Amino acid sequence: MKNPPSLDQLIAALKVLPGVGPKSAQRMAFHLLQRDKGGAQRLARALDAALGQVIHCERCNTFSETPLCNVCADPGRRQDLLCVVEMPADLLMLEQAKCYDGLYFVLMGRVSPMEGIGPRDVNLDKLMVRALDGVVAEVVIATNFTAEGEVTAHMVGELLKERGLTVTRIARGMPVGGELEFIDPGTLAQAVFERRRLA
Amino acid sequence: MKNPPSLDQLIAALKVLPGVGPKSAQRMAFHLLQRDKGGAQRLARALDAALGQVIHCERCNTFSETPLCNVCADPGRRQDLLCVVEMPADLLMLEQAKCYDGLYFVLMGRVSPMEGIGPRDVNLDKLMVRALDGVVAEVVIATNFTAEGEVTAHMVGELLKERGLTVTRIARGMPVGGELEFIDPGTLAQAVFERRRLA
Repeated sequence: MKNPPSLDQLIAALKVLPGVGPKSAQRMAFHLLQRDKGGAQRLARALDAALGQVIHCERCNTFSETPLCNVCADPGRRQDLLCVVEMPADLLMLEQAKCYDGLYFVLMGRVSPMEGIGPRDVNLDKLMVRALDGVVAEVVIATNFTAEGEVTAHMVGELLKERGLTVTRIARGMPVGGELEFIDPGTLAQAVFERRRLA
Repeated sequence: MKNPPSLDQLIAALKVLPGVGPKSAQRMAFHLLQRDKGGAQRLARALDAALGQVIHCERCNTFSETPLCNVCADPGRRQDLLCVVEMPADLLMLEQAKCYDGLYFVLMGRVSPMEGIGPRDVNLDKLMVRALDGVVAEVVIATNFTAEGEVTAHMVGELLKERGLTVTRIARGMPVGGELEFIDPGTLAQAVFERRRLA
């Protein structure tokens, strides 16, 4: 006794999703077929639509349905500031924070020697072309503060400094609302190390 | 700045999967579009194929591509034994255990008053028709030993005993290889309570 073939194929296909193993793929397939056929149909159509319509913005490399994304197409943004992030989700978070009015470049990943992801896989060549357009004066590196994010930041920084650009990194330190008693020691140490003089 | 509409629709569609919230739906969508477009395409096709081909076995209610599933269509199985399980995954586990040669009935759920899932939602009417075919002599209840599984077992048992069938429940007790030191007290208490006389 086995599952019917088309069910097994659906379970196998669901395993392409990150974080989904055999057990949860089976649970998902059962759920869709038993309780939410409408949802399964919408998912199939949404996959087709996204595959057909989502491209990368020519300038910043983020997901877009048009050659230029909304941010890059906005003439009101500062053209001399370029912020480098790992993923579109990071760009969205920065936009939500309403703290930045320059442009972006989305690497679509981070350098990870452990996973065999090198500089070529994260569009560093495309970034170099973009950053060296003669208009960008400062590149703000906003990759994550993980091991991979830091390696990526270092690489990007070295490459761009060589070419004469000002390169900055977003600050590390205590989170807003953070209490010393509950913060991790590494963050606290960094916050002390990078302390700023009060005006 | 927002995601492109087709990307947002894909993220929304992925949230129909059980256990997938907004953050992981976004991560899944990015992964599919960035790293595995082939996988996304296969998933869309597999959803369509499964929706088109998977039906319920007429006799046992499990997923099948044919009116009768392989087990129900097998004349070598005991026709007088009927095992009631919650989900097709449970049926597959019992088959893997090679401990049972009767037939099955798959409820496709369990009674859960907390979630508003009543007897009608778990095909108890279909089970009654199946169990009262005049050939079935014993019904083995193998729902889970969770609160909902036990409620379901009780309901199914009462309904079938009323109609004169022999109703049994698979045993509770220590797992094979289980050590008393590490077992939960409830299971150990049950194992003592349901102890058997050695032959």
